[in-house]
Amino acid sequence: MAKADHTVKSYDEELSHLHEDILRMGGFAEAQFATAIQAVAKRDPDIAAQTVRNDSKIDELNHIVDQRVVRMLALRQPMATDLREIISSLKIAADIERIGDYSANIAKRAIAIAEMRPVRPTNTIPRMGVLVQRLIKDVFDAYNNRDTEKALRVWARDEEVDDMYNSLFRETLTYMMEDPRNITACTHLLFVAKNIERIGDHATNIAETIYFVVTGKRMSEARPKGDSSSFIVMTPNEGGKDPGATET
Amino acid sequence: MAKADHTVKSYDEELSHLHEDILRMGGFAEAQFATAIQAVAKRDPDIAAQTVRNDSKIDELNHIVDQRVVRMLALRQPMATDLREIISSLKIAADIERIGDYSANIAKRAIAIAEMRPVRPTNTIPRMGVLVQRLIKDVFDAYNNRDTEKALRVWARDEEVDDMYNSLFRETLTYMMEDPRNITACTHLLFVAKNIERIGDHATNIAETIYFVVTGKRMSEARPKGDSSSFIVMTPNEGGKDPGATET
Repeated sequence: MAKADHTVKSYDEELSHLHEDILRMGGFAEAQFATAIQAVAKRDPDIAAQTVRNDSKIDELNHIVDQRVVRMLALRQPMATDLREIISSLKIAADIERIGDYSANIAKRAIAIAEMRPVRPTNTIPRMGVLVQRLIKDVFDAYNNRDTEKALRVWARDEEVDDMYNSLFRETLTYMMEDPRNITACTHLLFVAKNIERIGDHATNIAETIYFVVTGKRMSEARPKGDSSSFIVMTPNEGGKDPGATET
Repeated sequence: MAKADHTVKSYDEELSHLHEDILRMGGFAEAQFATAIQAVAKRDPDIAAQTVRNDSKIDELNHIVDQRVVRMLALRQPMATDLREIISSLKIAADIERIGDYSANIAKRAIAIAEMRPVRPTNTIPRMGVLVQRLIKDVFDAYNNRDTEKALRVWARDEEVDDMYNSLFRETLTYMMEDPRNITACTHLLFVAKNIERIGDHATNIAETIYFVVTGKRMSEARPKGDSSSFIVMTPNEGGKDPGATET
């Protein structure tokens, strides 16, 4: 069936369409993340609900990328560098799809948070959001320009996000301990913060993929995996212990 | 270079190796998840630390799958069904890799939890764990036997996991509100529960991929996305409202 396709495009043309699909998908995810953060910051359930509804659009774009890739592999039987580029597109699209999912989850929580009494960490979330928005923007710039230097910088900056997440985690636990009426809102904010941190990780994954496509080499395996909040032990009286100290 | 490979295997042989790689990776992830849950239930930091260390093994297996796929695409230039099978292996491997990551995160939190005073939800976690362990086992059985019926059943049963997660979420918030000394442990348990729920989602993704590979059709788009805990609004006095009620 595919063979009977009478509008056979040039291979470069197909590759450039794939590239555009990814950029479009990335732009959409960037916007979704921005509105999700806005919904949390402004306590706006309408923006939040709109963001939740828009998520299916990203899934659709992801499906289009998948189909295009399979078609290209079947019709073009590409070799070496082109193959690497095409397979990497699948990976990048999957990362963008996850960014979309996490953004939708942030928006869902924004709906619940808007109903609760305001808690302080709501103000820290946007700062973390801005940091990750910049990572997303930069990683798609890097993708568009095949800029490995920029990709490396995104990769390195993910640590800042992790640091901010870890301090927000502690701060939020403190509020929860102070007043049980803060607990539900703070729990949702913890998950929002975790989602933002995960979005940062996916931006980092994309940076790694870009680097691999352009150079054929993998970035150092020794990426500092920075969410050490999993190790945080805190009690109402003593405050937080050093996160690393609990690992045996 | 690849062309000069003098040990050219038959295509079926390559495909069967790919199949074995995936099963091996799946088996390993299954074991990692089991020990992570055990570490939480038994409050055992040693099992937990071992699980964290083992995670790199899954990443390694994932890398082997990726390399094999690229090699097969380059050398064999497969068409239609074979292409679908190969590309799907990439997706399944990525899902398994995520299951491994979530298991490692559960194990990290088990290390922290073991240092804190015991809280009740620690006992509910293993029940949720058993449920998801069965999903993982079944989905790899389905993969091994190309059993679409079993894949569909896994897909349907993910709702049970979501229900259990939602009730655990409420239960845990209640403990946090009762006594601030429970807050840190309970927060880690909430994240553990969330990780288990996500692992269930990845088992579901794999079920969808199996179905697609065997039938060429996508499962209904209308999968019930069941984590409604994002919408939960609870206060210390009134308890939980209906999760759906907050959506506009």
